[in-house]
Amino acid sequence: MRANPIKELLGNGATALNAWCSLPCAYAAEIIANQGYDSVTIDLQHGAMHFETAMAMLQAVSTTNAMPMVRVPWNEPGILMKLLDAGAYGVICPMVNSPAQAQSFVEACRYPPMGSRSYGPGRAVYYANAQSGRDYAAQANKQILLLAQIETKQALDNVDAILATPGLDGLYIGPGDLSLALGEPPLMNPTSQLVTEAITRVMQKTRAKGLVAAVHTDGPKTARMRFKEGFHLCSLQNDVRLLSDAAQAQVNAARCSQS
Amino acid sequence: MRANPIKELLGNGATALNAWCSLPCAYAAEIIANQGYDSVTIDLQHGAMHFETAMAMLQAVSTTNAMPMVRVPWNEPGILMKLLDAGAYGVICPMVNSPAQAQSFVEACRYPPMGSRSYGPGRAVYYANAQSGRDYAAQANKQILLLAQIETKQALDNVDAILATPGLDGLYIGPGDLSLALGEPPLMNPTSQLVTEAITRVMQKTRAKGLVAAVHTDGPKTARMRFKEGFHLCSLQNDVRLLSDAAQAQVNAARCSQS
Amino acid sequence: MRANPIKELLGNGATALNAWCSLPCAYAAEIIANQGYDSVTIDLQHGAMHFETAMAMLQAVSTTNAMPMVRVPWNEPGILMKLLDAGAYGVICPMVNSPAQAQSFVEACRYPPMGSRSYGPGRAVYYANAQSGRDYAAQANKQILLLAQIETKQALDNVDAILATPGLDGLYIGPGDLSLALGEPPLMNPTSQLVTEAITRVMQKTRAKGLVAAVHTDGPKTARMRFKEGFHLCSLQNDVRLLSDAAQAQVNAARCSQS
Amino acid sequence: MRANPIKELLGNGATALNAWCSLPCAYAAEIIANQGYDSVTIDLQHGAMHFETAMAMLQAVSTTNAMPMVRVPWNEPGILMKLLDAGAYGVICPMVNSPAQAQSFVEACRYPPMGSRSYGPGRAVYYANAQSGRDYAAQANKQILLLAQIETKQALDNVDAILATPGLDGLYIGPGDLSLALGEPPLMNPTSQLVTEAITRVMQKTRAKGLVAAVHTDGPKTARMRFKEGFHLCSLQNDVRLLSDAAQAQVNAARCSQS
Amino acid sequence: MRANPIKELLGNGATALNAWCSLPCAYAAEIIANQGYDSVTIDLQHGAMHFETAMAMLQAVSTTNAMPMVRVPWNEPGILMKLLDAGAYGVICPMVNSPAQAQSFVEACRYPPMGSRSYGPGRAVYYANAQSGRDYAAQANKQILLLAQIETKQALDNVDAILATPGLDGLYIGPGDLSLALGEPPLMNPTSQLVTEAITRVMQKTRAKGLVAAVHTDGPKTARMRFKEGFHLCSLQNDVRLLSDAAQAQVNAARCSQS
Amino acid sequence: MRANPIKELLGNGATALNAWCSLPCAYAAEIIANQGYDSVTIDLQHGAMHFETAMAMLQAVSTTNAMPMVRVPWNEPGILMKLLDAGAYGVICPMVNSPAQAQSFVEACRYPPMGSRSYGPGRAVYYANAQSGRDYAAQANKQILLLAQIETKQALDNVDAILATPGLDGLYIGPGDLSLALGEPPLMNPTSQLVTEAITRVMQKTRAKGLVAAVHTDGPKTARMRFKEGFHLCSLQNDVRLLSDAAQAQVNAARCSQS
Repeated sequence: MRANPIKELLGNGATALNAWCSLPCAYAAEIIANQGYDSVTIDLQHGAMHFETAMAMLQAVSTTNAMPMVRVPWNEPGILMKLLDAGAYGVICPMVNSPAQAQSFVEACRYPPMGSRSYGPGRAVYYANAQSGRDYAAQANKQILLLAQIETKQALDNVDAILATPGLDGLYIGPGDLSLALGEPPLMNPTSQLVTEAITRVMQKTRAKGLVAAVHTDGPKTARMRFKEGFHLCSLQNDVRLLSDAAQAQVNAARCSQS
Repeated sequence: MRANPIKELLGNGATALNAWCSLPCAYAAEIIANQGYDSVTIDLQHGAMHFETAMAMLQAVSTTNAMPMVRVPWNEPGILMKLLDAGAYGVICPMVNSPAQAQSFVEACRYPPMGSRSYGPGRAVYYANAQSGRDYAAQANKQILLLAQIETKQALDNVDAILATPGLDGLYIGPGDLSLALGEPPLMNPTSQLVTEAITRVMQKTRAKGLVAAVHTDGPKTARMRFKEGFHLCSLQNDVRLLSDAAQAQVNAARCSQS
Repeated sequence: MRANPIKELLGNGATALNAWCSLPCAYAAEIIANQGYDSVTIDLQHGAMHFETAMAMLQAVSTTNAMPMVRVPWNEPGILMKLLDAGAYGVICPMVNSPAQAQSFVEACRYPPMGSRSYGPGRAVYYANAQSGRDYAAQANKQILLLAQIETKQALDNVDAILATPGLDGLYIGPGDLSLALGEPPLMNPTSQLVTEAITRVMQKTRAKGLVAAVHTDGPKTARMRFKEGFHLCSLQNDVRLLSDAAQAQVNAARCSQS
Repeated sequence: MRANPIKELLGNGATALNAWCSLPCAYAAEIIANQGYDSVTIDLQHGAMHFETAMAMLQAVSTTNAMPMVRVPWNEPGILMKLLDAGAYGVICPMVNSPAQAQSFVEACRYPPMGSRSYGPGRAVYYANAQSGRDYAAQANKQILLLAQIETKQALDNVDAILATPGLDGLYIGPGDLSLALGEPPLMNPTSQLVTEAITRVMQKTRAKGLVAAVHTDGPKTARMRFKEGFHLCSLQNDVRLLSDAAQAQVNAARCSQS
Repeated sequence: MRANPIKELLGNGATALNAWCSLPCAYAAEIIANQGYDSVTIDLQHGAMHFETAMAMLQAVSTTNAMPMVRVPWNEPGILMKLLDAGAYGVICPMVNSPAQAQSFVEACRYPPMGSRSYGPGRAVYYANAQSGRDYAAQANKQILLLAQIETKQALDNVDAILATPGLDGLYIGPGDLSLALGEPPLMNPTSQLVTEAITRVMQKTRAKGLVAAVHTDGPKTARMRFKEGFHLCSLQNDVRLLSDAAQAQVNAARCSQS
Repeated sequence: MRANPIKELLGNGATALNAWCSLPCAYAAEIIANQGYDSVTIDLQHGAMHFETAMAMLQAVSTTNAMPMVRVPWNEPGILMKLLDAGAYGVICPMVNSPAQAQSFVEACRYPPMGSRSYGPGRAVYYANAQSGRDYAAQANKQILLLAQIETKQALDNVDAILATPGLDGLYIGPGDLSLALGEPPLMNPTSQLVTEAITRVMQKTRAKGLVAAVHTDGPKTARMRFKEGFHLCSLQNDVRLLSDAAQAQVNAARCSQS
């Protein structure tokens, strides 16, 4: 089975840059996947695609060396298993607020005896075995990266118990929702001390357990800061924001001449 | 019938900024259409969508005040008529190299007696009549903007005859193909004197006939220059380029911290 | 943020006509949205579309002044949040039978501190902000209309407790399922006294709480009756029924001449 | 090969009612196909679907006994052959104005030696052979119904020569475009004597040659009239018009109570 | 309502061959449905389609006499009801491990008073009523085939209680997951005694209750064995495996000549 | 620019096995592309996909080392250029019957000065440049493989003139259509001497010009024969046939036990 490049990267002490796809468009995903990110996440939660387009996007990402990852719309076994069968090599699960939810997430994603993922890895074997032997059933539990998203007060309270979930690879912090949950406006680079301290605390606890600390950002500046703080993986701006910001900048620059 | 906002704009001596959509994605088109462009062109020639997605994109653009325009894949009556029925308020036709081709283009897009467009404006009437009376059949020939693309040697030779085509509203210059045709690399802001002089000549002839002079550019800087030269409408960078450039810039900026 | 036109309408003491879309087709939705309804509901429960087509339909409805609404397939946070992010300005949730289910529905649809909706309103901001400032995060809890559907015995028993759910805007009665639940055939204009009395009782309790009383009907005659009874919003026949009835009527009328 | 039900019907001296699908939606096509029409035409010219949706609609129609027919966007061999391979049992070709165009249409649709249709009837064999032997290659030239659309002045002038095209089964009159071509407004039930006389003349010439005389109408009243005049096949209103008219009627009826 | 052909078949003491579709493609489903299977199952669990493609596949299967069946991605009322509304005449529910889960599955699929399926059988009535009267609401509970999938240790322990669920028609054994659950590799024709004995035990208990015993296989050889053991319905290899095996065999056979 | 693997292969004196995709399904294409073929052709002529699905299939094929090729529906510049922009590395054009048609095909596919392909290689650059520098504009004319299909009497008569077309890489023989054209049944492995001699003659003339001789077959046995005769590239059975034959074989084998 193809080794998970993000696991290899992080195992070597390096950091990883993650892209974030919200447009329901396999061509956009292929464009993004060619820009040098280490992984590309198809976001089925706040992104505008559902399963079939997500699978087409996983195919598009698989034309490159970037590792294909998904964020599921919800902690629900049906969609978790479908996306793994479709070839996702990493999964971010939103709103994991309790150890029970973390366990349910992991259980849906790991084959017995670690969990109860149902067997039938349709497209996954083509991606997984392209570079090595046909051992998906035996290796998938080890290669697939599972990150639980921490973004509520309850999750902060339960972070130790969540980190203790066997089979979980790490935590992914959503600063926007976490800010809202703590009574602050939903920023990707929060300035409120309450929020920034929570982020640091979760990162440190995650590192202390030897797990992957990952976080959403609003771009390279914040990402550089997060890496310095100790995060292993940072997501940059999503495609929707990249596109709208770039378009607006061009319109504004061109309008100057029209007045 | 809703007045064509680009025709109104240009009639008032103003200039127009045009967006260029190559991603087969109605959500991307809606994002683009909300950034302040005067018109949005769905490119079915080099863009990656075909008819049904193009219609979805026309619907998305129609949620805004930007004028919905298309570039057809080829000068073929079937697709020209389908896109007009789908609500395109402007059409750019690629590779119009002779007066016969210009006439064929116009004929497919104008109802009798000006042309031979077949009657059946399905979605078009909803967009057209939203702000005024039900007179699509009577007004469409006047409101729809038709631009012939000049991008070959043959077209340069025939530019006067093409400009004489009744029912044609203007010319759209494709600097990339024109450069290739003149033996230069395909740049959107050509530096070869041969090419720049050709561009200027076409623009001047078009203005002299009182028609619309439009051009593709590589962004706001070139667009500002083109407006100063006398062009009425400029297209900025397409969504694919906006997205890939913005993503690459973020990756490069974030990588600095990783070394 | 754009004011919710249905909330404004009902706030002024007027009544509202709602369209019902079951065909998975954005063009059909745009046609319907242009016929003068106050709102258009995309039905993901018994309708034949899933998320991506529903979003295309929301875009199509957004080309008009009709308010875009959805009925979700089930009371499940993942799909509720996705549809709100896609720009739904109202949500009908089927089979809300208990105060706990009502609370779960509302919690998924309201941002903290009212609920736990996750932040990431992709397309929603384009629709919401087109006519006013960028305050979606702050205003969404107030503008989005949430209606719980009452259609089982258990729901009838719990109607007071359901109506007491903070953040819920009103109730939507499904006469078909309610009839079945009470042992009657599934009619949209039930004649059984048991059912009609239940409908009246729910409407009166809803009005007494100052909330929105809404109901499904089988067309204008029943809708007029419901408005007289005190309902605020009535849905007319869905597109599938409109289409099949109209087609069958034409075939029958044309067949006369063939015998 | 399954016998063409429309050819059988007309061979027996009966008349045929044809449905007209413009919505790009296989579910809508299945609904329509269940209402008792003799044939269902998927309109790729003014309808809003392209090839793949048209094939899905052909599949939906094939769940019923109604004969699946298409109107192509244009007289172009590529799309003609693709739709025949997809299982169309009848084809209407728009804008056939000359015997050369009629010949080109027929040639693309008939296998050698009658024409030059390329062999590869993918889905067609499943529909064709469901009720009888595997003889598509041998029987298709005989079973497929080919109708050339007459709708311009030039076509009127050439009607005799067009009717003389070997392999053509009949003519289909488009009263809307024919009216426009003759300087009249585009009505489906024209009142101008110029137009009505032209329609009668084409019908009579077609019957005189023993071919199928078919016509578009605006509903059952006009269709009954056309059958009395001698037409064999009439199309009733399309799905878009059925849907919009029915919806508008319901809104108007319901609004009475609101004032 | 059309009688369920599989129920009729099994009622007559015959056995049934079931096809298994994992490709998200209505054309592939139509091809499969024409090969002589008694039923065709659209697999939304490990297959690569979601709701809308599944409905298109149900339409494609409905052009034949094969009974259209689905496997749902998960035991979730929303998708169960949507697929029944789309015309599924049989449902296999994965991972039914307890009587409570079996009850929940059945409840979502049966109308009151047997269950709480919501009423709105959109497409289902067209398929169901094509051959007989309009009595879907009254007959659906009797005609729809419901099979619970047994594939975990917990399910083996609870098999008697699951079989006692009113409204359940039978059990479907998944040998792959069952093998994994019992510590064996995931084979469709398991050789481990532990697994084979479990399969036999479940089949015998099912037959003893007079219910349908169904099972997944790896092809005709295993299926013949299962029928001899007493199974009523066997699924053969899915389309993905048929396609990949056949392609690989051709490549291998052709490569011989190249060396 | 990535070197064309088929051109490299043939340049080295090896032969090539080509797969043939007719199902409109990117997952099916990815499955096929993983079975060891040297190239995979997406057939837009007799296959059931149009542009957007074809592009998704090109993406799917690009996850493997098989060379992505297309057959266009017709010799029409619009679709030829769109598919090249989408990343096709080879093109088969059907029904090339004259040197003028061959020239028109080549002209649409080669950039100036060799032809008049319009510049805008959207997705193509990602596939082309993944393994080397950004020189698509300069190298595409050399790397893209262009094959003209010979399948009519007229083409046989013109084969020398067609072979003389500058920029054409070879000929692809369609034995089915060629047989029909010569008055024989459409077989992929024709036995009529008239046809087999024609096939041999075309192959020999092609080899004599140093061009690629390619042919459609009905599987490995015929392909082995063709390679021995001197053909460079053979297509095996398409996915539709592989699937239907494999399914039917399983049903037949399983039915034995049921009697």
